[in-house]
Amino acid sequence: MKQLSPGQQNQVPFVSVEHMTSIVLAQGVETFLSELTDYIEEDYKRWMLFDKTPRVASHSQEGVVELMPTSDGEIYSFKYVNGHPKNSKKGLQTVTAFGALSDVDSGYPVLLSEMTILTALRTAATSALAAKHLVLGGEEKKGSSLTMALIGNGAQSEFQALGFRAILGVEKLRLYDIDKTATRKCAENLEKLGFQIVSCGSVDEVVLGADIITTVTADKQNATILTDNMVGAGVYINAVGGDCPGKTELHRDILLRADIFAEYLPQTRIEGEIQQLDPDHPVIELWEIIQGKSDWKKGGKNVILFDSVGFAIEDFSALRYVKDLLLKTGHYQLLDMIAEPEDPRNLFGMLQNSRKSAA
Amino acid sequence: MKQLSPGQQNQVPFVSVEHMTSIVLAQGVETFLSELTDYIEEDYKRWMLFDKTPRVASHSQEGVVELMPTSDGEIYSFKYVNGHPKNSKKGLQTVTAFGALSDVDSGYPVLLSEMTILTALRTAATSALAAKHLVLGGEEKKGSSLTMALIGNGAQSEFQALGFRAILGVEKLRLYDIDKTATRKCAENLEKLGFQIVSCGSVDEVVLGADIITTVTADKQNATILTDNMVGAGVYINAVGGDCPGKTELHRDILLRADIFAEYLPQTRIEGEIQQLDPDHPVIELWEIIQGKSDWKKGGKNVILFDSVGFAIEDFSALRYVKDLLLKTGHYQLLDMIAEPEDPRNLFGMLQNSRKSAA
Repeated sequence: MKQLSPGQQNQVPFVSVEHMTSIVLAQGVETFLSELTDYIEEDYKRWMLFDKTPRVASHSQEGVVELMPTSDGEIYSFKYVNGHPKNSKKGLQTVTAFGALSDVDSGYPVLLSEMTILTALRTAATSALAAKHLVLGGEEKKGSSLTMALIGNGAQSEFQALGFRAILGVEKLRLYDIDKTATRKCAENLEKLGFQIVSCGSVDEVVLGADIITTVTADKQNATILTDNMVGAGVYINAVGGDCPGKTELHRDILLRADIFAEYLPQTRIEGEIQQLDPDHPVIELWEIIQGKSDWKKGGKNVILFDSVGFAIEDFSALRYVKDLLLKTGHYQLLDMIAEPEDPRNLFGMLQNSRKSAA
Repeated sequence: MKQLSPGQQNQVPFVSVEHMTSIVLAQGVETFLSELTDYIEEDYKRWMLFDKTPRVASHSQEGVVELMPTSDGEIYSFKYVNGHPKNSKKGLQTVTAFGALSDVDSGYPVLLSEMTILTALRTAATSALAAKHLVLGGEEKKGSSLTMALIGNGAQSEFQALGFRAILGVEKLRLYDIDKTATRKCAENLEKLGFQIVSCGSVDEVVLGADIITTVTADKQNATILTDNMVGAGVYINAVGGDCPGKTELHRDILLRADIFAEYLPQTRIEGEIQQLDPDHPVIELWEIIQGKSDWKKGGKNVILFDSVGFAIEDFSALRYVKDLLLKTGHYQLLDMIAEPEDPRNLFGMLQNSRKSAA
């Protein structure tokens, strides 16, 4: 792994919120999403190399705090992320995150980064990657005639829209949220960017004519956002909001007539929509499609469901991409994070010498 | 949980290596260790409140990277820590660490800190806390006549010595390391602080007349540092170095004639000296002694063994202590770590607005 600052392994590059904003805007949001999708796809193509483990969750009444580690044997990554649905009523983010990359050979961290913005981007990039393979058979930008319904118009919604435009070419959106001000906010943001928007007053209305339905709501409960009668044959559902035990968005009947795809089954069985199904209900992992290892073919009458909960490898890819952009953009600061005594066995001497130099 | 900077939850206080050094020296190392021992003891007294889970380890040929989370229902903490025995040959630290505290109700991080120095301190404080209860029956500073053998004179050794002086009053030390320059370094550091030091040429020699034997070596293998014939009846062993699968320091025969104490059994059965024993071999958890819940009494001929591997609650206590010192000492910087849009649902608008203000 390349050093950012040779000989200064005690200095860890940190990407703040301001730095991340500058990096994303310097690339352009859609270019960032497009390149990030490529990084995630690369890592899905070497899926077997990774250490994979369901995330480590600490649940409380108000929400959940999770750690998401993974490693490809050369680089290790983890993300800290919370999910607190009531936060927005307090003026706080529902989801905040930060994370790090480190060098497996030495164990030293090599990047620390904000990941609140980055998580919204990698979630959208993963959704777009899945849809590229499951809707367009792996080809990009052939979906400009497709209409996407976007249910849930909160913090992640615009990123989803931009991801689907960057990768699939989707321009036509139908928006719905139980909170009309959220829909207005989302519509205003996206109209400026040239999308064709229809704002809707109900779920029944928003799904009319939609080829793709993206659900990205935030309630921590089993909220049946979509019922069976609302979803026509062959529709593609990108289910993003249900992502912890007891938090789902789809009626079970939809799942029973769907071809279902997931990121990492041991995690999705606990957290995804499929927590409503038997633990041996057939589900295909996305990497199998991306690597051409599955004989699944699009074209039946079944609904196609990507049951997304977010997996550690996507964060790994996102941090890897940000690290590759650091030298190019220069948007980071160095943190004095690792104690570096002249003699590594003399950590105590380093403390003592500070006393002398301070005296 | 008190805010450091009211109304600025997006700014997270960060304690760098330099800040940590300043904090520890401002308190004085032994005062720091003594107060930290009190914090750990407080948390051991409310053991049942904590979420407890074995650490999440990612092993490679060169070492291990671990995440250690816990929560008391109000505060959540985690530590990132690596263990790479060959690092010191490359001029790097064997163990480096950093960690965070966050507010369970909002999920927002409230402290990020270096923990390389802090881990050495909390390990020593935990060792001293265990010895206070297991050697002195819970009383402090009654052990000035005791002699401690210190096997392994690397980065953690001086902290162990200072912990045992701060809490038990131990002044007499016997030192041994396979690397004589490590012993010389340790002796020089500790003689300046008034310890009575005997440097020894072998393990057989170092344990002569020792009441307490602390083993704090770093090899990632089953290294039989101590064999059965070396350890007399009633000796107290503080075994710190063995802390992952396949890494032990004591011969099994010692364990078979020892009263054994551990931090958290589901973790220590995997990582500690007792990985050499049957999974149902009787072992007492330290909190049971500290809370007076065990009827174990000192005084038999058995060796007494504290099979320390380090547990997440000790890091929780250490971060809690550092956080309490921040306002007093002022040694921290604020990091722009959490995205804070005016409307929490409008993360994308925050990005867009940065574009405008940059234009």
